[in-house]
Amino acid sequence: MIIFPEHRYYGESMPYGSGEEAYKNATTLAHLTAEQALADFAVLITELKRNLSAQACPVVLFGGSYGGMLAAWMRLKYPHLAIGALASSAPILQFEDLVPPETFYDIVSNDFRRESVSCFNTIKDSWDVIESEGQKSSGLSYLTETFRFCKKLESADDLSNWLSSAYSYLGMGNYPYPADFFNANAWKPNKRGLFSYKCEVWLCQVTCRCFYGGAVCIPWVCRKIDNCPNGTSILQRIFEGVSVYYNYTGTVDCFDLDDDPHGMNGWNWQACTEMVMPMSSSKKSSMFPAYNYNYTSDEEWCLENYHVKPRPTWITTEFGGHGFKNALKTFGSNIIFSNGLLDPWSGGSVLEDISETIVALVTEKGAHHLDLRPATAEDPDWLIEQRAAEVKLIQGWLDEYFDRKRAVFDM
Amino acid sequence: MIIFPEHRYYGESMPYGSGEEAYKNATTLAHLTAEQALADFAVLITELKRNLSAQACPVVLFGGSYGGMLAAWMRLKYPHLAIGALASSAPILQFEDLVPPETFYDIVSNDFRRESVSCFNTIKDSWDVIESEGQKSSGLSYLTETFRFCKKLESADDLSNWLSSAYSYLGMGNYPYPADFFNANAWKPNKRGLFSYKCEVWLCQVTCRCFYGGAVCIPWVCRKIDNCPNGTSILQRIFEGVSVYYNYTGTVDCFDLDDDPHGMNGWNWQACTEMVMPMSSSKKSSMFPAYNYNYTSDEEWCLENYHVKPRPTWITTEFGGHGFKNALKTFGSNIIFSNGLLDPWSGGSVLEDISETIVALVTEKGAHHLDLRPATAEDPDWLIEQRAAEVKLIQGWLDEYFDRKRAVFDM
Repeated sequence: MIIFPEHRYYGESMPYGSGEEAYKNATTLAHLTAEQALADFAVLITELKRNLSAQACPVVLFGGSYGGMLAAWMRLKYPHLAIGALASSAPILQFEDLVPPETFYDIVSNDFRRESVSCFNTIKDSWDVIESEGQKSSGLSYLTETFRFCKKLESADDLSNWLSSAYSYLGMGNYPYPADFFNANAWKPNKRGLFSYKCEVWLCQVTCRCFYGGAVCIPWVCRKIDNCPNGTSILQRIFEGVSVYYNYTGTVDCFDLDDDPHGMNGWNWQACTEMVMPMSSSKKSSMFPAYNYNYTSDEEWCLENYHVKPRPTWITTEFGGHGFKNALKTFGSNIIFSNGLLDPWSGGSVLEDISETIVALVTEKGAHHLDLRPATAEDPDWLIEQRAAEVKLIQGWLDEYFDRKRAVFDM
Repeated sequence: MIIFPEHRYYGESMPYGSGEEAYKNATTLAHLTAEQALADFAVLITELKRNLSAQACPVVLFGGSYGGMLAAWMRLKYPHLAIGALASSAPILQFEDLVPPETFYDIVSNDFRRESVSCFNTIKDSWDVIESEGQKSSGLSYLTETFRFCKKLESADDLSNWLSSAYSYLGMGNYPYPADFFNANAWKPNKRGLFSYKCEVWLCQVTCRCFYGGAVCIPWVCRKIDNCPNGTSILQRIFEGVSVYYNYTGTVDCFDLDDDPHGMNGWNWQACTEMVMPMSSSKKSSMFPAYNYNYTSDEEWCLENYHVKPRPTWITTEFGGHGFKNALKTFGSNIIFSNGLLDPWSGGSVLEDISETIVALVTEKGAHHLDLRPATAEDPDWLIEQRAAEVKLIQGWLDEYFDRKRAVFDM
């Protein structure tokens, strides 16, 4: 039996009767936490097994991205409920100073540099152009027109963030599928596939378009940027490139900076409470504008928007931080951390085996929880092999579980 | 360094500024849970270690009774924060149907029977006398006078509960100390000793008197019951006996059924939410009135008093239930479950070794977390040996921790 439990406060799983009520204020949002989600899953598993008289059935947890963190954490906190977890692209080390804060944007940058050095350089050079344009008297109007925004930009930073976001998601969705995956019919956004709810909740909805698009994103974007006629301006090149991402169907007349159809953002709340993931970008090693992670400015934003202060050390306190791998080795077992190195989140995940039963499956050309996407005829061999390795490990957990049960029964 | 963290909502650790506010209603009480307490301790340990630059210092958890459950659970849920736990008299199996519901009252009864069969029989016979007296026209007045209550009894059941409670606490406090421990000066209730806060919060305050009194409670009570002149009524005998417990200083003029000096009861709230411990008493095997655990009547009481429904399967979902010993064996380590078999809570605890590192230390003559009481000159050899065994095990955990650290350092 495969169960897809929906995370509270997302999709249709709204407490207080409606999304509007649930997202009303810090008091109603207080129950949107990772621990509450795990507790929900624990109750669900226990009740389902009871109702189905399936108490002896082993449970294996699967999750990608934040869902992968939940899967790994649940295996650690509820080992009596689940025999193992496949945590795909789960950046459980992307907290405090467990990994360098530059790792995410460095990986995105390398994805672009690997594709095309000139593309990388155009993007790298674009930030200064945008900034100086924004300082001109009619600069914001010019940028609004050039990038075809529906409403006038309020600052050049908004444009930069919009672009950075696109590049980041392009890195995550860097899948090894052929170009015809841009055919929107193959992956209709309203078709709820394996992880479509993830797309809708944790990655903002614009991502899904590109996720459905697949791997050719970065090559396509870079081709657009690189192949413009000589003399095309940097800004025009960037626009051509990013249009592939934000307007790959060619049907968008103008862009909105923020077009969250749900009118709420659960992840921002989580980032303002527990999920404090420090991220910087280095001017030296990345193609992004230089940015030093600044807790204080995040705190101000959270106080202003949600009236809460983030708890930057909570996740490592609750689930383990420094020396966590040692604790994992000693207390955990049966966890697969799968990652694709093209995925910027891979830098905050577990990329080496921790013990015989806590193993890392790393693919050089994989992207964000690629292994959890449905199998396709176009899957390369290394992806087929990765999934086979996962199935074999999980089969081993099941065999061991049933062997132990049989041994107890024989006694 | 020894840290005594106070459990939120008890003692002086009141959220919302005051006990009155904290205990106002179900909304303010919502944060009084075992998980929140564990999270508090996790944050405290982490912050203290950080503040003291003591991140590499190993932490060992100690707790008795509910505190023992917390210690064991914390070791399971936060293995990255503490290297081991001494869980003394921790009834972690006293939930759902993990142990027979009669175990608690059967153990109390055996404590009395072991002391004096006639004492056991007098108590056993007293319930019918009380009940039939309560049905007479002036029966409640007569019972009120006989037992010297300050206010008139509202029902004979109130008297029975008051007596049952005394016997139960006598079983828990069945310590091997000589009679002069009745000297109140030895353990002033306002002197905050090792577990005095426990006395004040989880065991109601009347218990402390007897806890401070010590082991001679049951012999003393039974001597009073047995040694009355021939012809003394059963009720008069019971009154003489229970006076030793409720009035061992001889200074009480009249008794109150409920004299909680804090004007609030955190444990009742916890019992109405998470800590649902089914208990029955068997007319056949115990000296108590027959009672079959009835979830529905508990639920009604909780709805009436706190406007909440208990969650009887939550603790086993969160911390493990059926098959829990198996999970403990596989995932846990470095836990000592210490118990004294005279203690009625021992029936709901772990009395057998679960693995090489999860061990049970059981003393035949011990009572409720006796090992955690301060050492005294009167300690019997078996108690001294039990404590030495605990120290040896804990030393082993520390040695192993430092060995491993050294090994990493040598690499």
